[in-house]
Formats: sequence, C-alpha cells, structure tokens
Amino acid sequence: MKINGTHYRSIWHEDGDDGVAYINQAVLPHRFEIARLESLADAVEAITRMQVRGAPLIGVAAVYGLALALREDGSDRSLAQACAALLATRPTAVNLRNFISRARAGLTQIAPADRHAAAIAIADTIAEEDIAICTAIAAHGLGIIAAACERKGGRPEINILTHCNAGWLATVDWGTALAPIYLAHDAGISLHVWVDETRPRNQGASLTALELGWHGVAHTVIADNAGGHLMQQGEVDLCIVGADRVAANGDTANKIGTYLKALAAQDNGVPFYVALPSTTIDWTMQDGLAGLEVEERSAQEVLTIAGLDDQGALTRVQLAPAGTTARNPAFDITPARLVTRFITEYGIHAPQDLAGAVPHP
Amino acid sequence: MKINGTHYRSIWHEDGDDGVAYINQAVLPHRFEIARLESLADAVEAITRMQVRGAPLIGVAAVYGLALALREDGSDRSLAQACAALLATRPTAVNLRNFISRARAGLTQIAPADRHAAAIAIADTIAEEDIAICTAIAAHGLGIIAAACERKGGRPEINILTHCNAGWLATVDWGTALAPIYLAHDAGISLHVWVDETRPRNQGASLTALELGWHGVAHTVIADNAGGHLMQQGEVDLCIVGADRVAANGDTANKIGTYLKALAAQDNGVPFYVALPSTTIDWTMQDGLAGLEVEERSAQEVLTIAGLDDQGALTRVQLAPAGTTARNPAFDITPARLVTRFITEYGIHAPQDLAGAVPHP
Repeated sequence: MKINGTHYRSIWHEDGDDGVAYINQAVLPHRFEIARLESLADAVEAITRMQVRGAPLIGVAAVYGLALALREDGSDRSLAQACAALLATRPTAVNLRNFISRARAGLTQIAPADRHAAAIAIADTIAEEDIAICTAIAAHGLGIIAAACERKGGRPEINILTHCNAGWLATVDWGTALAPIYLAHDAGISLHVWVDETRPRNQGASLTALELGWHGVAHTVIADNAGGHLMQQGEVDLCIVGADRVAANGDTANKIGTYLKALAAQDNGVPFYVALPSTTIDWTMQDGLAGLEVEERSAQEVLTIAGLDDQGALTRVQLAPAGTTARNPAFDITPARLVTRFITEYGIHAPQDLAGAVPHP
Repeated sequence: MKINGTHYRSIWHEDGDDGVAYINQAVLPHRFEIARLESLADAVEAITRMQVRGAPLIGVAAVYGLALALREDGSDRSLAQACAALLATRPTAVNLRNFISRARAGLTQIAPADRHAAAIAIADTIAEEDIAICTAIAAHGLGIIAAACERKGGRPEINILTHCNAGWLATVDWGTALAPIYLAHDAGISLHVWVDETRPRNQGASLTALELGWHGVAHTVIADNAGGHLMQQGEVDLCIVGADRVAANGDTANKIGTYLKALAAQDNGVPFYVALPSTTIDWTMQDGLAGLEVEERSAQEVLTIAGLDDQGALTRVQLAPAGTTARNPAFDITPARLVTRFITEYGIHAPQDLAGAVPHP
C-alpha cells in the first residue's frame, strides 16, 4: 500500500536486520510511527497493546516474535515458552494459533542453533502467503462489487458499509474486507464506503478512514449506531467485514458490533459478506456460537478515548462520570445464517458450503 | 430527583422570577451547572445545543421560551414568530410541536398583555403534568420488572439494557424509560442496568450513568456495539428505551442505534419496551417508517468528542484523520413489529393496540 507515494507493508523484515519493523497502529491516525520488535517481549507487548492488530497481522507478528525468542535461546524449552506467551496475548484471533502451530511443527524438526533463521524464513513465507491470499480475496470480491454495480444500473455509486478495520493494516498488505474495495476503485468502479467508527477503539474512524483516504476512496465516518438507519433508507448496497475467527459451521467472530450490522442487513435485504483468509477458519470449532471465546478487554478502552486536542497534542479524555464501571467484550459472534457469502482466497462460498469448498486438514 | 440530598428538577420556574432555571446538560457529567433562560433566543439556543434535551423536556423548555418571548412582546406577530422559531429547533421530537400547539391555542384567546403570565402558567402546568405522567409510567413499568424478576426465580438480579438517556434529565423529573427502574430499585428489586454509551453524543455514558449513580442503581457502561453480544450470552433480561416520536402505527423514532438493539432483542427473545408519555405520539403520522423525519446533526459530533483530560479540564479531541467527513443522523425508526409493549401513563399496550388504548383527539 502506498502512503504519500512510498510503498509500505504493515510489518516487514529486511535481510541482515536483526529485528522486525512495523507501523505502530496505536498512535494512528494522529502520528505515523515506525516501531521495531527486537525481542519476544516486544512482540507480546505490540500484540497485547494492539500496536499490531487484525487477525492475519497478529499471526505474522507472532511468528516474527517467536523467531526473536529463538535468537536468544533456540532450545525446546525456549520454543515452548515463547509459543505459550504468544498464544496468551489474544484469545479470539485464530491465525495466531494456526501460524504458531505451523511454525512450531517445522521448528521442532530443526537443530536449536538453526531455529532462529528457520523461524524468520517461516515468518517471511507466511507474510508473502498472506499477501497472495489477500490479492485473491480482492479478485473474488471485485466480482461481487461489479455485480452490485450492474444491478444498480444507471445509478452511479455503490455504497459499501464496513465495520472495524479489515484493510491492509489488519494484514501484511491489501487487507481482507477492504481489498476488493481497493481493486474495484482501481478498476474505475465508482464507490463510497460507510465507515463504522467502531467503538471502543475506533479502528474504523482512525485506521479505515486513514487507509481509504490514502488510497483515494470516497468514504464517510458514521457512529456505529447509524448503519441500521442508513440501510433502512436504502443507502447501503452491501456490507463487507473481516473476521477474527470463523467456526467450521460459518459462525463468525469479528469485532464487537458486527452482529448488529448483520441483523440490520438481513432485516433490510442488504447482502452481508465476510472476507477472510482460510487461515482464519478454526476447523476444530464446529459450533461457533457455542464455542468461540470472546476476549474481554479493559474497561478503560470504553471509559476513555484518545484524540488530538486543539493544540494538536494526542490527549486521552475521560468520558463517563468518575467511578463508572464498564464492560468491554472485544468481539461478537455473527451466526452463519446472517452471512450472505464468505469470500476467501478460494472463491465465494455460501455458509453451508464453507467446509466443503475450502481445503483443510 | 435528588443530587447529593438536594431535590432538583431538570427545569424550573419560581414565582416572582423573570426567567427560568435549568441544568445545563451539555457540560454533564463533568460539570454541574445551573443556567438560565431569559429570552426566546436563550431557549432556542439551549434546545439547539442540547443543553436541554429529551423529547418531554424539549417541549416544556419550548413553552417557557414562548412565555419569555411574550414578556417582550405579547402581540399575535410575536406569538407566531416565537412558535416558528421554537418549532424549527428540533424536527423529530414531537412533544415540542404538541406543547407549542396547545399553548398557542390557549394564548390566542387571551389579550396580548396577559399572554406572558398565561404562558408561564401553561408551561408550569405542562411541567406538573409531565411529572404525573412519568410517575404513572413508573408504576406501570414496575409491574413489568417485577414480573421479569419472578420469571427469573432464584437468580437474584434483573439485567436491563437501555439506550441514550430517557431519565429524569430527559423529562422534568423521574424520566420515562428509567422511571420504572428507579421505582423498582426503591421497591427493593435487585437490578443492574447496561448503559449504552450512545455515540455520538454519549448521553448514556454521561447522563444515564450519572443519574443511575445519583440514585444508587448498579450499572455498567458498554459501547453501543456490545448489546447484541450480551443478549446472545443471556445477560440481558429486558430492554427499556424512550422515544422521541411514535407514529400512530407504533413505529418509533428514538436515538440513533435503538433499531439495532430492537433487532438484537428480537433475535434473542429479549422483551423490548418503549416507555413514553402519550404526548410523544404523533397521531397525524400513520406510518412512521415512511413518514418520520430524522434530524441530521453536525459531523463534528461524530468526528470529535469532549471529556476530562488528565488535568481535569474539559477538552474536545479530534478522533478521525484531518479532513475526514461524517454523517450524523440523530434518530432511527424502530418498526412497531420489534416493540414488545409500549408503556404510557395509560398502561401497557401492544403496538397494534396503541391507537385504541391511548386517548387522543
């Protein structure tokens, strides 16, 4: 993705570099800051504090973190401890678990002294695969947007609603839900994106608005409360969101509030798409509503918010009366029945076809 | 309602006072400030800037504003101009229109010199009626909460979700949606309220949390996105919200995001109640979804937010990247089919019974 003419990935490792560079998303959109992972502890902190976030990117960052742990100590014990520390950072995102399992399976076959280099190579490979997957998702999703455009006939603009950030900042490059939008925009399709601000962490108003602006895609931020009204008014042609973990039955864990938009989409006949790499599917989970774990995060994320004050300083303000408590579930589960289609690197799938259409172990 | 032992109404007029006092809700919960209306212009500004808000309170404040206009000039022309200015402040709340119509009909019968005193008397009467109405709503709603408590059997606590602020700050005293909660709490029913923060203006996190805290009712603030998840998890026994305007068919205009919670309630079998004075019903509107006007407010309410910084200063911060645009519909329409029951001063009504059960012209 280009930012002011320079191509960036959300995370990258260069040959000969001992560490890993990433864009610190905790200070976006107000500051553009490149930070570095130099150790396992750095990776754990970057993931926990959501300096890197988004299910695919969390997974890639975790494997780089594993590699940094093995640089210090390549032993079996170090490998096990690092895997455990990384798996404990975010309980819902499943790419983390999938990528760590894959890396660990490979690394146990390798002599301890060679594990650091091997882990870096695995992380680099997963990062490249992630880009290829997102490119395929973009191509499949483009067909959906083009078809919506055709259905609309003479009316010029396709209005797409998205929740949270499933753009290139949530992956290594391109994104999942936003990838088809970028491709459609580049293909000359006139479109406009409704960006849910996505409280409490506002990844929509901060990250998605920033990404779309960088790419030149027309967009408007809305309160999370507004999407149902816009659908009632016929101002949304389709919804596309990402996912943090999808069960084998298609039940979808995604950012808190996704379920409410899926309900409104169904109530208004608006198609609701979930775009995801197949690595986000948890094949061990048969029933997502019954089984998917939802991370609870700090009440402070609800009770306070950061932004730029009138001096241009990044300031955190308290919103509620002193002493107020808050609950902060980070995800909700959208039942498969509310998903029109899944978009993966393998194509476009009805919920009931997901397990049959997507290769898995 | 008592605040630290002192009884307050949200707006009041004292004998011999030339003006009207009110609690400035634009600076709550961070500052408690009593402000005054001394003129029509003050009233228009207080309503437009939402220093007074909530459909019943807006209506009462408007009639006091009318009285202040008539103190300056009691002529027919002044009366007409003042009514027009007040009606233009907020297009969705219908009590405003109903109360202004009622006051105007009475005042045209009266000599210009006597109109100021008459208008004050009308406003005082409407304020007293509002309190009586809210008290009746509380009594009817108490039965619903008590029944929910009984259904829950041994489990000790009733969890109620509310959206925005339909408490005593939205009325003259007691409130609509919160009135039954206060009464149930006073009756010794153990309950806990999930408070939707209610972006973009956060009336939940600021006003509802404040009111419930003053009254000693257990409550937890949640992002607007979280309610669906909590309902899926069985953590909500019932929802109660207020209304800004209800059509004769039961379609309900209320704070943006209400519709999404009503959808989630239906999807999870959670009863969804709308509490309102009958003065909030627009009998001239047969089909709310087709006809109710939704006010669009400033984009700045979405793009910025005010809170206390770490120095304790009330500070407004910018949330989105510079140059981002926003859309800000203030209300949405919850179709009558999603409302379990309406609670008015006349009792508890199924949507299809509303027109038959509630007296109207």
